Amino acid sequence: MTSTFGRLFRITTWGESHGPALGVVIEGCPAGLPITEAEIQLELDRRRVGQSKVTSPRNERDQVQILSGVFEGVSTGTPICLITYNRDQDSSKYDNLRTVFRPGHADFTYWAKYGHRDHRGGGRSSARETWGRVAAGAIARKILASAGCSVLAYTREIGGIEMETFDADEIERNLVRCPDPVAAEKMTNAILEVKAERDSLGGVVEIVATGVPVGLGEPTFDKLDALIGQAMLSIPATKGVEIGGGFDTARSRGSVNNDTFEIVDGRVRTRTNSAGGSLGGISSGEDIVVRVAIKPTSSIERVQATVDTDGNETSIVIEGRHDPSVVPRAVPVCGAMLAITLADLMLVNRAARLTGSYEGFS
Amino acid sequence: MTSTFGRLFRITTWGESHGPALGVVIEGCPAGLPITEAEIQLELDRRRVGQSKVTSPRNERDQVQILSGVFEGVSTGTPICLITYNRDQDSSKYDNLRTVFRPGHADFTYWAKYGHRDHRGGGRSSARETWGRVAAGAIARKILASAGCSVLAYTREIGGIEMETFDADEIERNLVRCPDPVAAEKMTNAILEVKAERDSLGGVVEIVATGVPVGLGEPTFDKLDALIGQAMLSIPATKGVEIGGGFDTARSRGSVNNDTFEIVDGRVRTRTNSAGGSLGGISSGEDIVVRVAIKPTSSIERVQATVDTDGNETSIVIEGRHDPSVVPRAVPVCGAMLAITLADLMLVNRAARLTGSYEGFS
Amino acid sequence: MTSTFGRLFRITTWGESHGPALGVVIEGCPAGLPITEAEIQLELDRRRVGQSKVTSPRNERDQVQILSGVFEGVSTGTPICLITYNRDQDSSKYDNLRTVFRPGHADFTYWAKYGHRDHRGGGRSSARETWGRVAAGAIARKILASAGCSVLAYTREIGGIEMETFDADEIERNLVRCPDPVAAEKMTNAILEVKAERDSLGGVVEIVATGVPVGLGEPTFDKLDALIGQAMLSIPATKGVEIGGGFDTARSRGSVNNDTFEIVDGRVRTRTNSAGGSLGGISSGEDIVVRVAIKPTSSIERVQATVDTDGNETSIVIEGRHDPSVVPRAVPVCGAMLAITLADLMLVNRAARLTGSYEGFS
Amino acid sequence: MTSTFGRLFRITTWGESHGPALGVVIEGCPAGLPITEAEIQLELDRRRVGQSKVTSPRNERDQVQILSGVFEGVSTGTPICLITYNRDQDSSKYDNLRTVFRPGHADFTYWAKYGHRDHRGGGRSSARETWGRVAAGAIARKILASAGCSVLAYTREIGGIEMETFDADEIERNLVRCPDPVAAEKMTNAILEVKAERDSLGGVVEIVATGVPVGLGEPTFDKLDALIGQAMLSIPATKGVEIGGGFDTARSRGSVNNDTFEIVDGRVRTRTNSAGGSLGGISSGEDIVVRVAIKPTSSIERVQATVDTDGNETSIVIEGRHDPSVVPRAVPVCGAMLAITLADLMLVNRAARLTGSYEGFS
Repeated sequence: MTSTFGRLFRITTWGESHGPALGVVIEGCPAGLPITEAEIQLELDRRRVGQSKVTSPRNERDQVQILSGVFEGVSTGTPICLITYNRDQDSSKYDNLRTVFRPGHADFTYWAKYGHRDHRGGGRSSARETWGRVAAGAIARKILASAGCSVLAYTREIGGIEMETFDADEIERNLVRCPDPVAAEKMTNAILEVKAERDSLGGVVEIVATGVPVGLGEPTFDKLDALIGQAMLSIPATKGVEIGGGFDTARSRGSVNNDTFEIVDGRVRTRTNSAGGSLGGISSGEDIVVRVAIKPTSSIERVQATVDTDGNETSIVIEGRHDPSVVPRAVPVCGAMLAITLADLMLVNRAARLTGSYEGFS
Repeated sequence: MTSTFGRLFRITTWGESHGPALGVVIEGCPAGLPITEAEIQLELDRRRVGQSKVTSPRNERDQVQILSGVFEGVSTGTPICLITYNRDQDSSKYDNLRTVFRPGHADFTYWAKYGHRDHRGGGRSSARETWGRVAAGAIARKILASAGCSVLAYTREIGGIEMETFDADEIERNLVRCPDPVAAEKMTNAILEVKAERDSLGGVVEIVATGVPVGLGEPTFDKLDALIGQAMLSIPATKGVEIGGGFDTARSRGSVNNDTFEIVDGRVRTRTNSAGGSLGGISSGEDIVVRVAIKPTSSIERVQATVDTDGNETSIVIEGRHDPSVVPRAVPVCGAMLAITLADLMLVNRAARLTGSYEGFS
Repeated sequence: MTSTFGRLFRITTWGESHGPALGVVIEGCPAGLPITEAEIQLELDRRRVGQSKVTSPRNERDQVQILSGVFEGVSTGTPICLITYNRDQDSSKYDNLRTVFRPGHADFTYWAKYGHRDHRGGGRSSARETWGRVAAGAIARKILASAGCSVLAYTREIGGIEMETFDADEIERNLVRCPDPVAAEKMTNAILEVKAERDSLGGVVEIVATGVPVGLGEPTFDKLDALIGQAMLSIPATKGVEIGGGFDTARSRGSVNNDTFEIVDGRVRTRTNSAGGSLGGISSGEDIVVRVAIKPTSSIERVQATVDTDGNETSIVIEGRHDPSVVPRAVPVCGAMLAITLADLMLVNRAARLTGSYEGFS
Repeated sequence: MTSTFGRLFRITTWGESHGPALGVVIEGCPAGLPITEAEIQLELDRRRVGQSKVTSPRNERDQVQILSGVFEGVSTGTPICLITYNRDQDSSKYDNLRTVFRPGHADFTYWAKYGHRDHRGGGRSSARETWGRVAAGAIARKILASAGCSVLAYTREIGGIEMETFDADEIERNLVRCPDPVAAEKMTNAILEVKAERDSLGGVVEIVATGVPVGLGEPTFDKLDALIGQAMLSIPATKGVEIGGGFDTARSRGSVNNDTFEIVDGRVRTRTNSAGGSLGGISSGEDIVVRVAIKPTSSIERVQATVDTDGNETSIVIEGRHDPSVVPRAVPVCGAMLAITLADLMLVNRAARLTGSYEGFS
């Protein structure tokens, strides 16, 4: 619990933003999977700060090292520990936070829950914790790939500006990771504007899994939707999640919203996909479509009213190096969490039947 | 997993809509809690079908019986099994579903996953499974009440009609469980209209917990938000969940969205509550505010294209007795799931500190 | 936890000896397994009281009813709830136990832990809880059988009398379930003697699994040995468990104790089996051999010193109908627990490798 | 699962004997506990090799570093990661093991289960994994100490030589960790003898917890006994575990074996302790007494018959530096596992009652 996610493919993240190191332990990765540090690093580099003018200027190399579970380039079936050492920490910047609670942050709730906290950069509540998720996600993606399944994440909306066209190749070409280059430019400008105003913006990340086998997800509490809900709302700064039609579905009618079935190439398919690839909590073979609401960055360089650990009202200006919008950096984290969720359910699904599996009609 | 939810206060539901009985086993209910069948029945009666012209005319008594874990009216600390016997089942109505998949339902995915399914009334995928959640929720509410915490659920929106006023006393006075009597009447009419058109409507349920202790929720993957996400998206027909400002937050700015702190009566409070009572995944003491998107009922009495278990395209008209909107009946289920989530985290939180707990400032 | 055992094949037992019913919920049984009440009843009848002069004269029919998870005689993949109604309860016999703690029983510890307890027949701590284990074990055995694996349990020793010959056919032919008919008669006489003296005897149950696939058990904490340890020591009245050579191994030498490898029919085998079928916590393909120490029945019809719930020293004579030795009835429970442990690990093992499985050498 | 143990106080070990590092992640350690590397190191030094002529001459410093979860010397409630870097590895010694299975080791079963393994020093199956257990045990001991509870482990028997006297101060004064100095010398000589014969010895470790609060352990599958069973049999080289009277109890009578109750200083006590401190799986307040059977070291420098990964019969002589008896080094590991089990159950027990706890009689 607490810092562990998954049933058979299980990840446990550990570490604080200003401690000596942070990492993740992955249990239950099947043996026989080729794994290299370079592949994992590729995913991590997408999450890293210091990438562009719309992200924080901190410079963290975020270099991954495999400490266990991989032998001669292949997973052994035993726990994989991945680590990165914190290097570019400037803890002195956080001295004034020792006794004062930042609005929108976990400072107060950690202090109240535990009676004590690591105030440097948010400690455990820092989004730096997501390093381990992205690292583990790189491995989950390889498990998915072995079954022909892949996950794509991108920015759908920032500051109310929504994408209107989709070109997957555009995603990594712009600073905000939006598949619509025109919207991307507008989003970038919007971010630079609020940055100048010492303010911040939120947005919506969309994640799509394609090639998903039929049958992932367990009835009742481990529905595919339910675990996606947990996965996404466990990411810092998220405030909502929807699958397929989501909240729009709530305003629709059954006759419109139902996805009718047909047979295509011997397989059961639906003509539409308002279900977002999940029926009764189990994957239908259609694309899994998820959207996640990201709130505007809580750290803003403005005077904000707050209180301190002695119960006095005071005010705070958060200096330091913060993303005016975390949406672009949330993109790889959301993608990783969907990959992890699916890889886990793919393993769990191996025990669904005594014999056989769904192969479509011949 | 699969049919179990919770860490210390754990519920396991079992049973199909057309089997002999269904129920729930509750592990980890603390000893010393007074529990009666009458109290549980009160909650169950709110979920029951056959209540009004906007719900299904099936007549299920849904009578609860306590089979274990309660002795002389008080919980003993051992598993509590609650059961109800299915009585008003008319399985013959479902004979045509044996080989045909209903659009929007779990028929196809269960069949593909398990190679075999109980086609009568959806079997395990039927919303009838939620009986056990509401029954367990009644007990969770008593645990919460012992700490001064309570959960209120109601219909916020149906078919695009949104509530505009709030009067808690109105909720149980109208057929749709809306705290705004004017909106309630509009919603009722909208439901009757689509019913006449053999169609269905979705909507939004809102759930609010008040008096929540500071400190509930665990960092990382068992954040309060994450577990609420899992809890809500495990309910049949749900397609989205948001906490506090939710998706609106994604269109806001940090300077507007941040809830600034103040001291009120010696306790840390926030002036606004766009966080919905959760900071860093841990309860702040403010109201927990959750909204859940419910899709329109999939069962509609219209001709719909579909396929059968032999891979043939065909069509289906779903006869039987169905709710034109499940939103009013989803209300007690959503309330139960929030109560269960909070009660569980309240017990887990007892182990957060070696000694002491947050008591505010004197 | 608490009342749940297993990772993928999970059982949750519930119910007290003098409540209206007791039962078990089995999650994760693979779909497609033929299951009948008659097969389960067969196992249950072996555990039942009222069988012979060496067991309790209570008469419980212990009739099983399948409430969910099986449709048209085949498992559906959803939770299987099995129930039995308590019929032959005479709670008045236990009135004097309301305030007095029976030596050797859980009366005091339950009372101290929970501040309140069901004193009738031990409530939850009664061995009657094991009904659900044997019922679930019958299903686990069918999963094992589908892979050519079976589990045999029998009495190895009672009151210091140990079996000297082995004939599997003898086990169900005598009252004590011993594969050696000569020893069986001695054991029976020993039990009748202590019964006349209002005393009781303990003994040792041995359980052997044959045809076990190579690879069951997970490294580290879910070793086959570790889970067998938990499984067996969770059975009431057990005080020890050993695998293979067990405590004798502790007095041996490496050169004697090591089981050397050979190739037989293209498979890796060991010439001896002091490891009891487990190397490094993973099944080797040899027989799994387990022995469990059962203490003498705590309930004896003699005056024993004790204390009451007011803190007074007093004495007690336990009347009622008790087994002078529970060993014969522990036999099917031990067998069930090994079957459940192996079936669970068999399902978990499906996720061990990305592709392939051990098939020996061709 | 697999590499995780515990419910609320949870440890996850990772790492191989010849990888770059190994360690443990501890989730659920309550906040507010003072923790230093020095204290943890003290326990680790008891487990270390290279200590004496009866242990392996390898020289591993086993230095612990705290990577997370402790801030300014106090636990924060977030995951504690402890790491040690492997330094004195000589992997070349293991080259001949790449294709040959050592008798008594996990080489064959890992290879068969995973299709691939780290052959250097046993990889994950090496007892070096227990480093993390001892490190975590040091923290568990501090939690126990805060409740007046402590755990003592020692060698009870080696090579058939059993201790006859008990003096706790003697334990760390001799090479075999035996509280009886006379027996210790005999054991030492016996070990040196078999070492000269290139053979090895097993033995029995005894672990005693004193000052244990009443009420630890959960009914049914998480009984104190059951979790101790899992904990101990998860330690490499263990083949049996018993609680209190253990297997001797199986040869006793109820009238002798039952521990009768009395009142001492206002608390319920038993006059004897054949139950080993556990009644119905819940701690009674008496000492918890556990014995663990340790097999003779499998690695012996003699010719042994075996097979290779191509299915050929061959033979092996295991060179390298091995303990002629691992019993002395198993002592701190067994102690750590009991401490971890008790600390976890102590936290779980906080949720047993709605209010109050057992305090004895005033």
